[in-house]
Amino acid sequence: MTDTAAEPTGQDNTTARLETFSDGVIAIAITLLVLEIHIPGRDEVGGSSDLWNAMGDLWPSYLGYLTSFVIIGILWANHHNIFRLIGRTDHWLVMLNTVFLLCIGFLPFTTGLLAEHLTHDGERVATIVYSGWFLLTALSFNLLWWYPSRKGHLIAATADPAAVAEVTRRFNYGPPAYTLAFVLAWIWPPASIGLLILLALLYVLPSKAAG
Amino acid sequence: MTDTAAEPTGQDNTTARLETFSDGVIAIAITLLVLEIHIPGRDEVGGSSDLWNAMGDLWPSYLGYLTSFVIIGILWANHHNIFRLIGRTDHWLVMLNTVFLLCIGFLPFTTGLLAEHLTHDGERVATIVYSGWFLLTALSFNLLWWYPSRKGHLIAATADPAAVAEVTRRFNYGPPAYTLAFVLAWIWPPASIGLLILLALLYVLPSKAAG
Amino acid sequence: MTDTAAEPTGQDNTTARLETFSDGVIAIAITLLVLEIHIPGRDEVGGSSDLWNAMGDLWPSYLGYLTSFVIIGILWANHHNIFRLIGRTDHWLVMLNTVFLLCIGFLPFTTGLLAEHLTHDGERVATIVYSGWFLLTALSFNLLWWYPSRKGHLIAATADPAAVAEVTRRFNYGPPAYTLAFVLAWIWPPASIGLLILLALLYVLPSKAAG
Amino acid sequence: MTDTAAEPTGQDNTTARLETFSDGVIAIAITLLVLEIHIPGRDEVGGSSDLWNAMGDLWPSYLGYLTSFVIIGILWANHHNIFRLIGRTDHWLVMLNTVFLLCIGFLPFTTGLLAEHLTHDGERVATIVYSGWFLLTALSFNLLWWYPSRKGHLIAATADPAAVAEVTRRFNYGPPAYTLAFVLAWIWPPASIGLLILLALLYVLPSKAAG
Repeated sequence: MTDTAAEPTGQDNTTARLETFSDGVIAIAITLLVLEIHIPGRDEVGGSSDLWNAMGDLWPSYLGYLTSFVIIGILWANHHNIFRLIGRTDHWLVMLNTVFLLCIGFLPFTTGLLAEHLTHDGERVATIVYSGWFLLTALSFNLLWWYPSRKGHLIAATADPAAVAEVTRRFNYGPPAYTLAFVLAWIWPPASIGLLILLALLYVLPSKAAG
Repeated sequence: MTDTAAEPTGQDNTTARLETFSDGVIAIAITLLVLEIHIPGRDEVGGSSDLWNAMGDLWPSYLGYLTSFVIIGILWANHHNIFRLIGRTDHWLVMLNTVFLLCIGFLPFTTGLLAEHLTHDGERVATIVYSGWFLLTALSFNLLWWYPSRKGHLIAATADPAAVAEVTRRFNYGPPAYTLAFVLAWIWPPASIGLLILLALLYVLPSKAAG
Repeated sequence: MTDTAAEPTGQDNTTARLETFSDGVIAIAITLLVLEIHIPGRDEVGGSSDLWNAMGDLWPSYLGYLTSFVIIGILWANHHNIFRLIGRTDHWLVMLNTVFLLCIGFLPFTTGLLAEHLTHDGERVATIVYSGWFLLTALSFNLLWWYPSRKGHLIAATADPAAVAEVTRRFNYGPPAYTLAFVLAWIWPPASIGLLILLALLYVLPSKAAG
Repeated sequence: MTDTAAEPTGQDNTTARLETFSDGVIAIAITLLVLEIHIPGRDEVGGSSDLWNAMGDLWPSYLGYLTSFVIIGILWANHHNIFRLIGRTDHWLVMLNTVFLLCIGFLPFTTGLLAEHLTHDGERVATIVYSGWFLLTALSFNLLWWYPSRKGHLIAATADPAAVAEVTRRFNYGPPAYTLAFVLAWIWPPASIGLLILLALLYVLPSKAAG
């Protein structure tokens, strides 16, 4: 299971299958989010106006779907970007990537929990779990980048050192921001969710004008 | 997260992983449709004739599965076609693609809603949501093509300008057609669903004789 | 949406993304089969011996999982093999592939239906639907091969004509065999299921000694 | 369906689509694990402290998610490694891979069963099934490696014989270890689960210092 055992085959594109597998897990987790949204049944609603009301009452589910979808989408884009700079894998990179995917794969649960309890008694607990899990996910993602970039031993020879430094610089903002969202969840849950949405929107804006 | 940061690695095939990820999300959303069809339980039916009846009563589910499957299949084919013309990605293309996937990922919900309420009191609401979401999806898809093709800055150097213009011309029909389906849903829901099926069939026919 | 519009980009590997998308749908359908198996709840069983009994009572679910998994696995292998001979796609091939995937995507439903009603009153209906859907799937698969191979216009220039003829010859056995299973389902359901399992086992054996 | 029929197309990368398909199935199975975790409903809990308690009571689900995720992740990494040494496929390799995927695809069921019955009356049965299925999975994986490596007829010409021997040597530890977990499940279930976690941790450590 060490890559040292398998590397003599000398394939150039050693990160390809790791990326394919990661794309699969992230794509599935992001698409499973929809399954946590309860479809209002015929027996729960009567006429048209009742169904509009029932659909409206699902707003925490829509909010959770949107927020989690965008954050997972951003994490995918970041994963995509760091693996354009990473030239090869080794045992620990595969393991750190597995931990990151484990965090991603759990997000449909935390999102469903938030949707179920938002605006009800369990709101605080659900928001703590929701924001706390994003914090864990962000930490595991930063570890996934810190490990190959720290000494640069897995960075592609063709990667621009300035690009590597720029990625490192920007990822430094993630953990403190998610820590703040986690702390806010204990104090005032809506502020925590608002911050998570704001963070997603900030990520959507490029750090420079897009080329 | 800007592509400008990562581009110095100079890979030729910069849209490959975006396509893989999109294929994954679309493939999962299209396959999750089946989970919204309720399997008639033993306790709900007695003898063979009861099960035939119970299976027959599920026709709104089959209709929803078929319609959504074909429309998502067509959207995938269109996505596939525009990315054969798009030569590289940038930050905004990744973001617009994420919005498109967010629309796709929600379709199992709107399809399940339609199947549950068709021929019942909630039919109008469900059809409005169903056709309206396809309209949003079509708009997000057109935006995904408009952005790279508008100035052509992300179009592959090898792409035939006539092919680019032809794709642009044909996509112009989508939003008005889905707007009409959305408007019809408010007036007479069956006409809206009939139009959506007709649109799917029209798309199946090639614009010219297939080569 | 015609490929003629997009082909000027002149990519060699034009079937690649079609295969990726198909792999995705088939992989998801085959893996969703497990979700149709009901996990015996704590409230349904008491002690250890009760859980063994409850696990044993699930044998129709295991049988359905096994049979469907192996048949879908074989269909994937066949899909894989014909696309090694198919050199490029066109509009109708994409459409026929979508119909085939639509059939595949519905199999978790027919499998769940069989598992629910096997050995109960609805056994005949469930077996008719189960075997009939495999017949439809086999027909759509044969159409998917007949279209590109009939005149050979989409077959790869490097493909051995003998290999093409051999694939055509072997696929001719599928539809009659599944028709027989479908007919048997009306007469004696267990014989139909037995035949489906036998067909799967026959496919597992290679037509010649594997090289 | 024999590869001999299709091989004349002479593609170099004949294992590529088998790997893509396998990645898909493994990625889906690993991500479906989360669906087996029951989200505590509003009607089941009252205030915040109740939700903390309900979340705490789910620890067997978290344990099952973690253990299964890590073991499937390791199986993926092993699958990835052996296919870096395997140069081409044939009929039997495809069939053995299908059996392996069939084992993987069933793991969400055994994991859900364990989570449901751990610390309750069905604990022993659930642990026997859980550990026994991992044993079957490990055996099918070893068969998948034994078949191409035994005579080396499918091993890539560029593969280092020492790497092949090293992989063979290390996989020999799997079946006895999982057999021990299976035996322990009959005697004292917690010891079986503890051993499975220990095995996962041992696998995480590389056999040599990672390069």
